[in-house]
Formats: sequence, C-alpha cells, structure tokens
Amino acid sequence: MAKRFGILTSGGDCPGLNAVIRGAVLKGGTVYGHEFVGFKDGWYGLVYGDIMELDRSVVRGLSNQGGTILGTSRFGPYSEPDGGPENIKKVLKNLGIDGVIAIGGEGTASASKRLFEDGINIVGVPKTIDNDIDATDYTFGFNTAVEIATEAIDRLRTTGNSHKRCMVLEVMGRHAGWIALHSGIAGGAHAILIPEQPESLNQVCAWVTSVKNRGRSPMVVVAEGFKLPDMEQAHSTKGLDGFNRPRLGGIAEVLAPLIEERTGIETRATVLGHIQRGGVPSAYDRVLATRFGMAISDLVADKAWGKMVALRGTEIERITFDQALANPKQVPTDQYQEVRVIFG
Amino acid sequence: MAKRFGILTSGGDCPGLNAVIRGAVLKGGTVYGHEFVGFKDGWYGLVYGDIMELDRSVVRGLSNQGGTILGTSRFGPYSEPDGGPENIKKVLKNLGIDGVIAIGGEGTASASKRLFEDGINIVGVPKTIDNDIDATDYTFGFNTAVEIATEAIDRLRTTGNSHKRCMVLEVMGRHAGWIALHSGIAGGAHAILIPEQPESLNQVCAWVTSVKNRGRSPMVVVAEGFKLPDMEQAHSTKGLDGFNRPRLGGIAEVLAPLIEERTGIETRATVLGHIQRGGVPSAYDRVLATRFGMAISDLVADKAWGKMVALRGTEIERITFDQALANPKQVPTDQYQEVRVIFG
Amino acid sequence: MAKRFGILTSGGDCPGLNAVIRGAVLKGGTVYGHEFVGFKDGWYGLVYGDIMELDRSVVRGLSNQGGTILGTSRFGPYSEPDGGPENIKKVLKNLGIDGVIAIGGEGTASASKRLFEDGINIVGVPKTIDNDIDATDYTFGFNTAVEIATEAIDRLRTTGNSHKRCMVLEVMGRHAGWIALHSGIAGGAHAILIPEQPESLNQVCAWVTSVKNRGRSPMVVVAEGFKLPDMEQAHSTKGLDGFNRPRLGGIAEVLAPLIEERTGIETRATVLGHIQRGGVPSAYDRVLATRFGMAISDLVADKAWGKMVALRGTEIERITFDQALANPKQVPTDQYQEVRVIFG
Amino acid sequence: MAKRFGILTSGGDCPGLNAVIRGAVLKGGTVYGHEFVGFKDGWYGLVYGDIMELDRSVVRGLSNQGGTILGTSRFGPYSEPDGGPENIKKVLKNLGIDGVIAIGGEGTASASKRLFEDGINIVGVPKTIDNDIDATDYTFGFNTAVEIATEAIDRLRTTGNSHKRCMVLEVMGRHAGWIALHSGIAGGAHAILIPEQPESLNQVCAWVTSVKNRGRSPMVVVAEGFKLPDMEQAHSTKGLDGFNRPRLGGIAEVLAPLIEERTGIETRATVLGHIQRGGVPSAYDRVLATRFGMAISDLVADKAWGKMVALRGTEIERITFDQALANPKQVPTDQYQEVRVIFG
Repeated sequence: MAKRFGILTSGGDCPGLNAVIRGAVLKGGTVYGHEFVGFKDGWYGLVYGDIMELDRSVVRGLSNQGGTILGTSRFGPYSEPDGGPENIKKVLKNLGIDGVIAIGGEGTASASKRLFEDGINIVGVPKTIDNDIDATDYTFGFNTAVEIATEAIDRLRTTGNSHKRCMVLEVMGRHAGWIALHSGIAGGAHAILIPEQPESLNQVCAWVTSVKNRGRSPMVVVAEGFKLPDMEQAHSTKGLDGFNRPRLGGIAEVLAPLIEERTGIETRATVLGHIQRGGVPSAYDRVLATRFGMAISDLVADKAWGKMVALRGTEIERITFDQALANPKQVPTDQYQEVRVIFG
Repeated sequence: MAKRFGILTSGGDCPGLNAVIRGAVLKGGTVYGHEFVGFKDGWYGLVYGDIMELDRSVVRGLSNQGGTILGTSRFGPYSEPDGGPENIKKVLKNLGIDGVIAIGGEGTASASKRLFEDGINIVGVPKTIDNDIDATDYTFGFNTAVEIATEAIDRLRTTGNSHKRCMVLEVMGRHAGWIALHSGIAGGAHAILIPEQPESLNQVCAWVTSVKNRGRSPMVVVAEGFKLPDMEQAHSTKGLDGFNRPRLGGIAEVLAPLIEERTGIETRATVLGHIQRGGVPSAYDRVLATRFGMAISDLVADKAWGKMVALRGTEIERITFDQALANPKQVPTDQYQEVRVIFG
Repeated sequence: MAKRFGILTSGGDCPGLNAVIRGAVLKGGTVYGHEFVGFKDGWYGLVYGDIMELDRSVVRGLSNQGGTILGTSRFGPYSEPDGGPENIKKVLKNLGIDGVIAIGGEGTASASKRLFEDGINIVGVPKTIDNDIDATDYTFGFNTAVEIATEAIDRLRTTGNSHKRCMVLEVMGRHAGWIALHSGIAGGAHAILIPEQPESLNQVCAWVTSVKNRGRSPMVVVAEGFKLPDMEQAHSTKGLDGFNRPRLGGIAEVLAPLIEERTGIETRATVLGHIQRGGVPSAYDRVLATRFGMAISDLVADKAWGKMVALRGTEIERITFDQALANPKQVPTDQYQEVRVIFG
Repeated sequence: MAKRFGILTSGGDCPGLNAVIRGAVLKGGTVYGHEFVGFKDGWYGLVYGDIMELDRSVVRGLSNQGGTILGTSRFGPYSEPDGGPENIKKVLKNLGIDGVIAIGGEGTASASKRLFEDGINIVGVPKTIDNDIDATDYTFGFNTAVEIATEAIDRLRTTGNSHKRCMVLEVMGRHAGWIALHSGIAGGAHAILIPEQPESLNQVCAWVTSVKNRGRSPMVVVAEGFKLPDMEQAHSTKGLDGFNRPRLGGIAEVLAPLIEERTGIETRATVLGHIQRGGVPSAYDRVLATRFGMAISDLVADKAWGKMVALRGTEIERITFDQALANPKQVPTDQYQEVRVIFG
C-alpha cells in the first residue's frame, strides 16, 4: 500500500506556500508513489484530524497562487488541551499517515523539533518572509516582499520629486531589516532604518537635509521594528492633546512628523502592510519553493525525520531543526555599514 | 517670431501629468511652430517668473514617467502678496509668453477662470485622480490608481483566505468614491463603502458575516472619505486610555477593530496611501493624457482662452471653466445600488 | 420554479470573459433568482447539450482570472450536421433552459442574430480584443492588450537606446489598428502602422532616419494586419535562397530587414503574439466585463431577446445584433492623422 | 588630485547595468574620493577616447532604469585597426584615467584579461543574462528575464486552457537553458527543453499527449538553443513548397507544427525575444548589480587589477579573469533530471 504523508502550513501566510505543497505532491507522487493529505489550518488540522486529500489534480496550477490552500493559524500542537504527541500519534495512526511535513517559521520549527523528540515522524520546510533564519541563504516569500516594497519606493519617488517632499516608507521586519535593506538598495533610498542598527533622529534628519540640499527629494525606508532612542520615541507618542499613550500606527507615522518638525521639509508616511505578503509570488520564490517542496519529498522518502531543507548558494541542503533554530539571521553591522556610506 | 506658451501643473501629483506636457509640446511645436516653457512648482513659477525651457529633447521619453517634471505646489495665484493678475501680466510680458496652460484640479480651474476674467490668456486641462469632475467622463491618473488598488485587493485576498480573516482596504476618495467603486468591482469586494452613500456599521457587519458564513473571507474596500454614522464613529475614536481624541489614521483603521469586535471575525486594515498616485502611469492614462496635451495645443492655436479639454465617450471636447466647476461628479445612487445588490 | 439560462463563450479568448460570467451569475441569481449553466466550448456545448452548473461558488474569485472557465471554440451553431435551430430548441427544452447568453465577436453576433430570427431566446455580449465593433465605445480585453503591448514598448526602448537600434514591435490587429494606435501613443512610438492607413516603406524609413538623426533610437509599432504596398511586400518574401514563397512570421519580421537595408540602422523585430490575450485582466477590463455581465442579466430578466449590451461614454446601453454587426470600427483617418503629425 | 577611473559596458544590454554604474560611482566617490567617467558604446569609447563624465548627479535615480546610459556595442579592443594596448594606454594617459572597469560577458572578460596581461589596469564585472558563468552563482539580468518569461507563461496558460491548445514558449538561452529551467519551474511547464539536454520529438509529444489526456492544456518552454535530433529538425525546415532551406524564426516555430502534426493537438508558438532583456530591472537584479558596483569600487581602490567580482551564496567575492572564463555554466544533468521527473 502506498505510504501516506500529511502537509501543514503554520504561522503567517507567505507567497510560495502553495508551490511547496505542489512540489512535494508532484515529486512524491511521481517518483516515490507516495500519497499526500493536507492538514487544515496548521497544527489545528493535525491535532483534530481535519484533512483534505492532495492529489495531482488538487495541486495543478498552484505555483502562482499566493497564500495557502491548506489555511493557516497560530494554533500550537502542545498549547491546546487536545494537543500533545500522544493524541497526535493516535490521529496519524487513525488516518493512516506515516509522517508529517510542517511548513512554518521559528515557532513551527520549535514545535516540530519537540514532536520529533517525542517520537513523531516529522520534517520541516523553513518559512519566513523576513528572511531571518540563519541556516538558509533565503526563504521563499522574501523576494516577493522585496519586489513589492521596491515598486512602492519607485512610485513614492515620483510624488516626492513632484512635491519636493520627504517620503517615509515602512516595510515588514520586526526583528530583522532584510526587506528594508534590499528594497532600500533596489529603490535607491537615501536612508534605511532597521531594528538591528540604531540611528538617532539627528542622523536621520542630517541625511534628509543633505539630500534636500542637493535638490533632491529624500526617500527613507524603515523596517517596522526600528526604534528611535527612547527619549525621541517618547516625544513622538505624546498626542495632540498632550497625553502620553501607546503608539498607534507604525514607526513611519512616528518618524514622519518628527522629520518634518526638525528639518522643515514636508514629510509623508506610507505603511505598506499586508500587501507585502499576499498575491502572486515572484518567479524566484516559486522556483525556491518548488525546489524546497521537491526536496522535502526526498527527505520523506529517505525517512530523514528531524530534518529540514535549506538553501546554500544554489544548492538545496538538509539541516536539523536545531540548526534552523540556532541563530536568528540579522543584518550584520558590516553589511549595513557597506550601504550606509552612501546614505544622504 | 514663434509664439510662446507657458505650462504649469498645480495641486496633488497624478500619473499622466508629464504625458500632457509632452503631448502639448510635441504637437504645438510640430504642427503650429509654437514654443513652450514650464512654470516651476505650479502657480509659484507663474507669479515669480521661475521657468524652464520645454523643447522636444526635454519631453522625450516622458510619457511613462510619473509625477511632473515641472514640480507642483498648493500655492494660489491670488492668495500671495506678489500674486494677482497685474503682476502676472507683467511676468508674462517680460518673459514673452503669449498664454498659459494650467493643468490642475478644481482649485486650479477656479483660479484659472478668475485669471481669464481678469484678462489673462489661459486654458486648462482637468486633473483629478479621484475622477470627481462631472464635465469629463474620465481624467488621467484615475485609471492608474484603480489598477494599483485592484492589485492590492488581489494580494490581500490571498492573505484573507489563508487566515480566514476579514481584510479592509482604504483607498483614495475624499468626496467621491470612484476609486473604491471601480477597484472594488474589479477585485470582487464584498462591500464597498464610499462618501456618497451612508451605510451603517450593522449593515457592514451583516455583509461580512454573510460572506464568512459562506466559508469565504470578507474583503471590504472603503474610500478615505467614508464616514460611519456619528455615534459609531465617536465610539471608535475613544482610545485605550479612555480619552476621546481626534482620530489618527484612516477610516480603515477605525472600521477594522469595530468589525472584529462586532462579528468576532479577525480583521486587518491596510491604508494604501500615496502609492496610488505615483509611478509609471497605465497605458490608458498615458493615452488620455497625451490626447489632452495634443488637444490643448489646438486650443492655444485657436486662441480658445477660457476653455478646457474634456473626454466625452471616445472624443476630446472643449468645455468652459464654468462647466468644469459646475458639479462635482459623485457616484450616483443608482450606480451604487446596481453593485450593492451583490454585496455580502 | 426558477428560470434557468445558459451562457457560452465563443471565438478567441479574451481577458474579462470570466468576469462577464461572474457578473451575470451573481446579479441574475441575487436580484432575479435566476439559475445559470455554462455551455462548454462555445456553440459546441449548446449543440450537444454539454453543460456545467454555474452557481455562486463556481464563479467566486473569477474576476481576475484570464481566459474562460467554459472553454471556447470556433465551432458554429449552423455549420455542423447536428447544429441548427430545431436541434438547439430541443436541447434547450430537454435541459430546461429558458434562454441563451452568447459572449463573442462578430461571428457569434451574426450566428446569434440568425438563431434569434429562428426563434431562439438569445442575447449577446460583444467581445473583441481588437476593439473593432463600432456600436460600443470599448470592449473588455482591449485595455489589457494595450497595457501589455505598452509594457513591451517600454522594455524594448531601453534595448533600442543602449544599442542605438531601431526596434519594431508587432501587436494584434488584423483589420483594425486600435491596439497599435493606443499602445504606440502610450509608449511614445515614432511610427505607428495600421491596416487602415497605408504608409510606404520610404515614409517609414524617413521617420526612422529622422529619429536616428536626432540621436534617438526609433521605435516602430505595427499592427499584424498592416501591409506594405505590393511591390515592397513581395520583395520581402523572397528568401535567402531566392525563391518566392508565402511569408512566414509576422509583418514585423518583414519590415525589420527592409528598414535595416534601406536606412543602414540595425533593426530588430519582436512579435508579441499570444501573450497579449491571456492572463490577469486589467482592472478596467474587469469593471467593464462585470458591468456587461450584470447588464446582460437585466436583459434576460426583461426578455429583451435579440439585444446586446454596449458601452457608450460611461453608460451601459442596449443595442440590436444588427447594430453590433453594422460597421466594423476602424481607426478613422482624422484620428490617425492627429497622431501621425508627431511621428518621426 | 583625485584618481579617475573609466567604466564601460559591452555586449548585449541587460537589466542592472545602470545600477552597477551607479553603485560604483556612489561608493567610489563617497568612500574613496574617486572620480569616474564612462566610455561610450563599449570598447569603442575606450579606443577612441569618447567619454562622458559620471558624477553623482548623472547616476541619480539610475537603479531602476533598464539598458545602459553608456551605450554598448560588440566592438572589440583588439579587433579594430585603432585598437590594441599601446593605443589604449595613450588614450588613458591623455584622459588622465588610472584604470578601467569593464562590465560585460565572456568576450569582454577575455579581452579584459588580455589587456591586463598587456599592462592595462583593468577590473571586471560579469554580465550574462543567460546566467552561464560558472564562477558566480548568479548575474544581474537573469532574474528579470526569468520574471518576464514566467509572467508570459502565466498569460499563455489561460489561453491554452480556454482553447485546449498546447502552447510553446521560446525564451533566451543559446548555450545554457537556465532561463527556460527557472521560468518553466515557476510557471509549472509540462516540458522544459534546453540546449544541454537532448530530448526527442517523440518524448516531447509523449509529455504533451499525457497532459492532454489528463484534461489539461500542455505548456512547453523551450530555450532558443535547443535542437531536435538532426532528422527531425531537417523535416521541419522543409517549407510548404517542398524546398529545404535555412530555418526562419525560432525553435518554437519549428516545434509547434511538429507537435501539432504528431499529436493532433492544436499548438501555438510564441517567441518572447527582446522584451526579456529590457525595461525596469527586478529588485533582485538591482540589489545584485548595486552590490557588484560597490564591490568593484573596492577592487579599484585596492588596485586589484585583473580581478572580477562574483556572487557566492550571499557574499560578493573576488575572482580572476581566468576563473570567470574557465567553465561555461550549463544546467547539470542531475538538476535537469530532478525536474524532468514531473514533466508530462
């Protein structure tokens, strides 16, 4: 009888998830004769045995579809009363499923590792739109997000130039500034602000003013996780009515009025938000995701439980859950400095 | 000696402005032997005689460039101490300029009309990204904005589906909901909320819930000028600290938590903002803007001072400033109702 | 019992077909309580009773899908042995279908008219990517094709400039040059060649040379139906081996070597082909197609058999099959001349 | 006095060339105080001392511009009477230029190596849109080409599905099939044909038929350099008139009628051509090109003559001209086989 494996997608959605699913089902089916089901809504589907069949006809044409046909959630396999390895083993046995492919970020890898140690056959595909997993050069979704953010910079630039304004664009990146760094380089930003690298408001304003003095319109790209030094930040959260209160809106909406106030240059904020993570994946992400999907079907065939796939150079390699969890990948200081020299 | 005309762009920037300039310069130069200069930064350049030469080489390749090479501002020709018709007549005489082409919105048409009545040779090109001038079927910039908003809906939809969330997208439209209406139709939105048509929070939540009950993820498109009935709106501006205060952020950021609270459906807001008005114009807008530019050079050649160009069906026609100012074009109730029947 | 109507799409595919289907099903179902089925593969499905159910869940998310979910073919309702009105009446009766919505071009309108005269309840939606139906200002698909062709011009321009080459782009348009005209205007082409307007090779080469002499790289856009005067055309079809033979490839591939030979300017041809008619429809086409779809459901409800929908200005109107068939819409000479003055 | 360096771009244009130039000028100027000039039209400008100044204002906003502002040509530094190292040394001395940055492909690297051995201070940036240089993981331009080709596949797919046709898309790749491989994976092609891997017409038709039998529409992506075994190829070049003659058009135009004839499935060819290499570069290519440009300014500062830059994983490294020339990078058999298993 054909072996049967279950796939789940967990955490925030990301362009390329469907291409991973398609790659795994096509190669696993064609080469190894495996069958696949999908667990619905992440770990929820695994814990409650809520599945859908995944055959070739279901995954047709999926590589250019954003999001995930399986649904996703932030549910964890240990955190719910019905969760835990013993229950999951029963579910898998009842459904005749021989192993699990978990596609997700840090939380998913962490839960997968624990399930593996608790005796579940499980392998993983790394997923982070922020590109903050050190064990892989890139992950799918990141490229699409950078392309979208770059197009936004291109668009904002023409408005900035026409009105002689400073434009501030906020992009994703809570703990790592990769999207800001890459889109900022691609879009020719005059300042790129990321969580890893503190910059003072004075410095930002100096760059903005220098650009303006050359007769150009300043473009600032800021990752959502960037923070100004405390005093400056505090100032910005004092509302019009004089009450301090939790900051509403993003960092771009904090920065813009501060820049305008200090430099005298009219400044506008744009928060890109959710449009960075949805829609048609870039070709780059589809290729990477398809390769991850095909490679994970090899891991399953090899019973390489406890492993994940990763990109190194142009090759797909195998890593352990521990390697995936070892270090968050932040923008190194030297790489930031390399670009910072041409700010302003 | 060749006749010489000055072009200015005023008010918010808009995709297609450069194509108008190019169309006017190319046709005016080639067919009528006219020369052109640009006034910098809107009326400012006219009042202070700040100009740039506009010959064929300057406008080459301009049709696909967003923004305006002339710069723009919100400066008015009457509102500044140095403004006013007598000063402007002197400036034009000193610079040897025989007439003015003013590209702008309602304020620009209004000022142009007054200058015309005060004896200035002036013609106008309508510009409104919101499509709210009744005397013309469409204006350039609107199509580009709708395309960008529609792509955003396409992207948000995949995230909504993956997470089973309601997504709320805020698009431009302070007084008229055309961008919301067209992008909402194109993107298959489940509710479209516009300034012209009141809808209660209850109604919005009923649509959202009905979509959810069919197993789909609700997509709400809202124009920035849409307002909830007063009581509901007030509620939303009460912050976490209990103080009422002026609303920060857009209407989407007001609506999203209200929808989530009442329906129990996780809801996310995205405010599209400035990216709707910048960047490469759509082909549609380039064609319309080029035709407007070429037609305005005919008006100038005909000394049709006091007139503007407008689109009627597939033809470019001539209208008066009064016609352009007569009625703001809002979404008619019957046209809204036509679409409203398939909401939810 | 609910009334039941059948929809078919016939002839070449076109972006927006699915949005028409969706608009008709949503409005017809919600407002009038009608049910819909789709005939598969155009008239074939009608003649052989090959149908699929079209309920709300089938048309969900269809507005941004290219092509047609019903399939299409060039099969005619009279041309096959099993065709003809008597057979079709039987099919409709057997399937309990009260009327037909035929979406298609000139051939479809012509066949629909004959079926209507033979007693079939039928209404029509005009479809022509070439925009060559005079009774409607625009049809869906045209805008998407123009956007794609314009993007191609933008791309080719950079190569032309870098290599100081003349680039020739061939776009769709067998009998009418609308796509060439609009994309050529939008892309700033230096010559636009269309079937309706003869231009000699000498004239084309004069424009190309004039552009080159100004230090720029000539861009020529040519509709597939454009023909050089006979003698010149003949010359070009003589192959390397000296034999005259039927021309292979498109007109661009004929023109490019002739231009290069006569002007001495390196010239490259690109034939855009099928990518102009597929893929995600533009927002403009989705709106127009959705409005056509909703309006055709009104015609059906009104039993306005023998009628079609059409766009006039910003309004959807009703026309007869005869009006749709009356005049092909070609580019009028004065509209061509208006643009021709800035060629070269 | 500031050191002064000259930049040239040679060979076919490629998205990202301008971003390299900008990156070098910005970093070289800001960090090292270097000055830059551009040689016009490749080696021609070097041999004849035809230059343009490249200061910060010239390179502003260049990162999103396709093509090369310097112009390019296929002129070689040794092949012309006025070329050769002695003349070039004189030109450099006369113009006060201390070294040369040559951006180009294999021919450029080869000529650069010889010039270096003949005593010219020269460094290189690899450029190949086909991605066929083994010493670097990727080069700029390749990603943009893959994105464009993938979008074309997405578009063709809807037409294929609507008409139940087989669509054949020809993409760039004379000696290496990387663009076909990546776009084919991204677009979900059912067969990918590349120069490195022979496939018989029988095999291609078997895949096409198998797809058709599953009720889908076959999509074949073929690199321009792919060849059918001799006998089959010969057959296809016999024209309607029965004469053998040199093949006109691309391989797609050869394949399509052969597939149609053998399988009975209507088949259409599209040759993507020049639109793959022009226009706005993808963000990926802009980042890579900017990093190459900044890194080459470091090489110049280090007097690392005879070296080139290359991408390895996520790092920019230094290689010799010999390394760049050592091995063309072709698609390895195992990588092709990995994908081939899911064809059909």
